[in-house]
Amino acid sequence: MNDSSAPSYANWTPRAARAAFRDGLATQTSAFCHGHAQANLIIVPAAQAFDVLLFAQRNPKPCPVLGVLEAGQTDGPLLAGGDIRTDLPRYAVYENGVKIAEPTDIRDVWRDDFVTFILGCSFTFEAALMAEGIRMAHIDQGVNVPMYKTTRRCAPAGSMDGPLVVSMRPIPADRVADAVRVTARYPSVHGAPVHVGNPEELGIADLSRPDFGEPVTIPEGHIPVFWACGVTPQAAVMETRPAIAIGHAPGHMLVTDARDRDYLIP
Amino acid sequence: MNDSSAPSYANWTPRAARAAFRDGLATQTSAFCHGHAQANLIIVPAAQAFDVLLFAQRNPKPCPVLGVLEAGQTDGPLLAGGDIRTDLPRYAVYENGVKIAEPTDIRDVWRDDFVTFILGCSFTFEAALMAEGIRMAHIDQGVNVPMYKTTRRCAPAGSMDGPLVVSMRPIPADRVADAVRVTARYPSVHGAPVHVGNPEELGIADLSRPDFGEPVTIPEGHIPVFWACGVTPQAAVMETRPAIAIGHAPGHMLVTDARDRDYLIP
Repeated sequence: MNDSSAPSYANWTPRAARAAFRDGLATQTSAFCHGHAQANLIIVPAAQAFDVLLFAQRNPKPCPVLGVLEAGQTDGPLLAGGDIRTDLPRYAVYENGVKIAEPTDIRDVWRDDFVTFILGCSFTFEAALMAEGIRMAHIDQGVNVPMYKTTRRCAPAGSMDGPLVVSMRPIPADRVADAVRVTARYPSVHGAPVHVGNPEELGIADLSRPDFGEPVTIPEGHIPVFWACGVTPQAAVMETRPAIAIGHAPGHMLVTDARDRDYLIP
Repeated sequence: MNDSSAPSYANWTPRAARAAFRDGLATQTSAFCHGHAQANLIIVPAAQAFDVLLFAQRNPKPCPVLGVLEAGQTDGPLLAGGDIRTDLPRYAVYENGVKIAEPTDIRDVWRDDFVTFILGCSFTFEAALMAEGIRMAHIDQGVNVPMYKTTRRCAPAGSMDGPLVVSMRPIPADRVADAVRVTARYPSVHGAPVHVGNPEELGIADLSRPDFGEPVTIPEGHIPVFWACGVTPQAAVMETRPAIAIGHAPGHMLVTDARDRDYLIP
């Protein structure tokens, strides 16, 4: 995206974006709040919190923990002055592993024993890729990034078990090495790709039918590149069927006060 | 330590060392099993396990998680064929925050809901320091490494709260930079020092009276250098007084099958 076409939400502050989402704006958040880190969400009752945190510890590539809100806590340093129950554009509520709603507010289902995990998101490094002149096809095409369940298994932890979920971005063949180099410097937001090229090796039969998000047209001369994705805990929820769990609606992230550069390693 | 004076236990395999500890050998483990990573232990009931794992997540420098044995599990890939209840040379058992025993075996107090956290240990990088010609004064002097509670506070997590504990090694003034450089490459085993030089800034009044381990004489021209220490969760236990918790006796580590180099970053 060049500067002349940059939409105004790229220049919003995280606080302003969260306020707009709180007021009902229900959009995917790629390219929002330039320079600020975005994050995945997984919320579970305290009784299941150890399993989720251990799952994240054992699967740091899809589940890099940026912060944890303890039982009943609704704000924290990543969302100063905010409320985790209202400040995302859209949520995904699961009962017994089945998504029963995608509300824009979860105050009516909130419980005081809910623990919130805030996980790194690959949207964080998109600005760094674009700064290197690597265009994001999903942004150019105005769609949510496509995400796929793979046949790769995560390391299980207690009751949590499931497949690795990946996001896919088409990258020009001659820029794949640059995309690897740039994203490897952001290990807390999924880091380097887990796979380059052949979706079948990940068990993805049809790129045009993502499990989450929307399909993106792969431009001529581009290679599909796959990054670990923070929707992975939701796939584990769908498989292991806890009584209740809440995530963000895929692509509809928490926009945090942290800076992308906070997660850049030297 | 030069090769001619290297004691034979430096050449033991981890499995042989664990077997010897299982049979009752009760010694500190610095310089055991050259090239193999050593680890701290903290064992708590499942009901407290989330707090401990979150404490580790929020305090990765003193509490780098190498592995977790889930409730009731007594072995794992870091101690193949072993038993976490017998394979350390000595343990520390706490009731209500008070150390009530330092047994060589914890089978009699073991519970099926106990969760074991295996945390990185600075003994892991001692071989790398010695390979650079930096002698370890505590090994030369035949004592356990000295450890100190500091006035720096950890980030609390649920019921867990306490001071940062550090280990201290005297380093020749002209090798301090090398010691920083070498240990910074091992972030999973405490990494670079947290402090160089002035113990008073850490609230340590008297280096000759460590809170754990044994005092070491600081050779002429050496500077005290402080690394974050995996006894930190035990200091939190002493402060927050859970009904039951078990650690390793300081300096009496789990010798793992992992290699030091597994934790070396490029």
